Amino acid sequence: MRRLKIVVVVADGLGDRPVPELGMRTPLELVDFSPVADLLSRSAVGLWDPIRPGVRPGSDTAHLALFGVDPINNYPGRGPFEAIGAGASLRPGDVAFRGNLATVSDEMVVIDRRAGRVIPEAKQLVEYLNQNIGEIEGVRVEVYHATEHRVAVVFRGPGLSDAVSDTDPHSEGVRVLESRPLADDEAARRTARVVNAFTKRVAELLRDCPLNARREERGAPPVNAILLRGAGKMVRYPRFSERGELDVARAVAISATALVKGVCALLGFEVVTPEGATGGIDSDLMSKARAAVEFYRRGYDLIYVHVKGADAASHDGNPYAKVDMIERTLRVLSYIADNVDLEDVVISFLGDHTTPVTVRDHTSDPVPVAVYAPGILTDGFSRLTEKEARRGSLGRLRSVELFGTLMDYAGRIEKFGA
Amino acid sequence: MRRLKIVVVVADGLGDRPVPELGMRTPLELVDFSPVADLLSRSAVGLWDPIRPGVRPGSDTAHLALFGVDPINNYPGRGPFEAIGAGASLRPGDVAFRGNLATVSDEMVVIDRRAGRVIPEAKQLVEYLNQNIGEIEGVRVEVYHATEHRVAVVFRGPGLSDAVSDTDPHSEGVRVLESRPLADDEAARRTARVVNAFTKRVAELLRDCPLNARREERGAPPVNAILLRGAGKMVRYPRFSERGELDVARAVAISATALVKGVCALLGFEVVTPEGATGGIDSDLMSKARAAVEFYRRGYDLIYVHVKGADAASHDGNPYAKVDMIERTLRVLSYIADNVDLEDVVISFLGDHTTPVTVRDHTSDPVPVAVYAPGILTDGFSRLTEKEARRGSLGRLRSVELFGTLMDYAGRIEKFGA
Repeated sequence: MRRLKIVVVVADGLGDRPVPELGMRTPLELVDFSPVADLLSRSAVGLWDPIRPGVRPGSDTAHLALFGVDPINNYPGRGPFEAIGAGASLRPGDVAFRGNLATVSDEMVVIDRRAGRVIPEAKQLVEYLNQNIGEIEGVRVEVYHATEHRVAVVFRGPGLSDAVSDTDPHSEGVRVLESRPLADDEAARRTARVVNAFTKRVAELLRDCPLNARREERGAPPVNAILLRGAGKMVRYPRFSERGELDVARAVAISATALVKGVCALLGFEVVTPEGATGGIDSDLMSKARAAVEFYRRGYDLIYVHVKGADAASHDGNPYAKVDMIERTLRVLSYIADNVDLEDVVISFLGDHTTPVTVRDHTSDPVPVAVYAPGILTDGFSRLTEKEARRGSLGRLRSVELFGTLMDYAGRIEKFGA
Repeated sequence: MRRLKIVVVVADGLGDRPVPELGMRTPLELVDFSPVADLLSRSAVGLWDPIRPGVRPGSDTAHLALFGVDPINNYPGRGPFEAIGAGASLRPGDVAFRGNLATVSDEMVVIDRRAGRVIPEAKQLVEYLNQNIGEIEGVRVEVYHATEHRVAVVFRGPGLSDAVSDTDPHSEGVRVLESRPLADDEAARRTARVVNAFTKRVAELLRDCPLNARREERGAPPVNAILLRGAGKMVRYPRFSERGELDVARAVAISATALVKGVCALLGFEVVTPEGATGGIDSDLMSKARAAVEFYRRGYDLIYVHVKGADAASHDGNPYAKVDMIERTLRVLSYIADNVDLEDVVISFLGDHTTPVTVRDHTSDPVPVAVYAPGILTDGFSRLTEKEARRGSLGRLRSVELFGTLMDYAGRIEKFGA
């Protein structure tokens, strides 16, 4: 079977619902598809449900499925992926929590679960903790700042378990909880002990932290506790090269978004952020396009280009910025299509999940997807709005089904059976 | 995320196949959709496979899936649900069997597995047994009459198991079987002992039952045994309020059908049967419509209206009665749509399974479904026959996928992932 290269271009948050501001059209319906009209008309199109219909995907779970790992049975919970999104490199066995910077009384009664939510000195506070916290029972602890009051906390050491309860009481006016082992084994008991020592250590360190003195001067509530929830133990995902059914030796992910980069690294991608690519709407997208073509020329099997901007515009509720970001992403797609040998490549353009600008968050609406491959049965659409996607011949693909389809068109997947 | 109310209206057995009597049209193709044409034209439509394509759903398994519980991995077998359909309130741990009223010889050889099938005094026989049977080894036994010769038998007590074999030999001319433990534990041994004692006790009680004397007078075979099959141990389903990923506090199910009411109660619905609602084709459906609007106004999150009549007409093989019942169900839907704020509600209309009038039983044909939500991408159909459903943009949803979709449009379901 002839082996083709695979290029996947994601416009993060691509799909949408009708927008009142746009006369009940979707952003995609305002998009100028002319740069990719020829490529699309030579493609099959359809819908993709990253997890399954009716499940709202995270960026992490969607990317696992996009690259062939069923997230329903292979997801350690949000703790580890929050940490990855905040820049952590996790190893299998690490236990990570989501956490809140919070304000508590001297008796550890929660006064504000979010310490005022706006915490300009959050990064410095976290750095202060990381410099001073040290090890606990031979376990290394790292705190990562995400956004506002949100942090992730990673525990790394032998014999840890994620079968421990939250310290976050999930309400105010009550004491911070002791973490309890949820399994009758030494790993759970040890982890709960370490977590409780962490809670105490954090309170001691922050009590004397000069950053809090300055907060109090301007009337802001002190940050003097970290509340933990959602323990998850990092799993190991098989790298592409370890997946016997696949023939993918070299894969590269071009992205500027920490969570996406983290997930891709776990799957065995080399991860690249070209200069000028920021993950925001000011990103130099053409640097990603040029990088993709460069890796194609260097003989990479799978080249993934992730463009965040359309999702950022959606979270901001800005349909015009979304139209603009999609059009800029299509120029990336067009540049790549113009600079590869179309007889030698499978190209897919899609979203990783739908983020309607009217909702400003991920929804379970299936995402439009186009698949170009030499000799594929085409639908002949020269646009890819939600409507063409719903009429497309790919139908409604779920989870890992899309990845398998791409791998098959590229001649890179084993037969199941004789 | 804005939270909307959810209203689900089921016409039981809705879908169909072409009917020779109707010139190879389906009942839905004869239905006047005008009362709901506007609502449908603002909806997305498609097909739903309650379990998965190729599996014939029961009303119980279909309703579990409709409300987000995967029945394939969470179904204790038909025994418990037959009992629920016959009016039993089951508790987790109860073991229930399907049973037949049967005729046996003095040596317990099966003469008629159905005791003539038509048993006018079945209800009295069952009452007689329940009054006299007493406890067996501390286990309470209850017999419920379903239809004709069919009963369900519930064993309630500590330490029971469903790992026991049938007493029904599934053929005639052979002896009633001893139930055997199918697991090597005390619960299975104890349950088999109790079941065998039950068989004996029933034979003793029915031997002297005056009802049998009267049956024999008119030449009908005596009912002198109960044959048991399909042991199932009742499980506990999480209530809506216990499902952390959902935000559904108050849910009400409006139905007059025992099995549907039982399943809904297990899932945490308040269950209501308005006066005049019978579950038959003579049911006062508008009393259900008024009740639905009343619960909407009282702030319920999820309102379920179940209308049995179309299924009853299908089991009778009467396509005209089915058309009529569907039209009456659409008036319920129309009344609800006219009396709620359409900016505040997700409305779904569908069947719980297909019951073709030519088959007179449930089939695996997918059911038509319509989903209205503010801002949903619409298909613009003003009718919902099998044909529009097959062309609809929802595609073909399976099992719990529909529930997740409704919950997502209502802004009531957590994201899976970060």
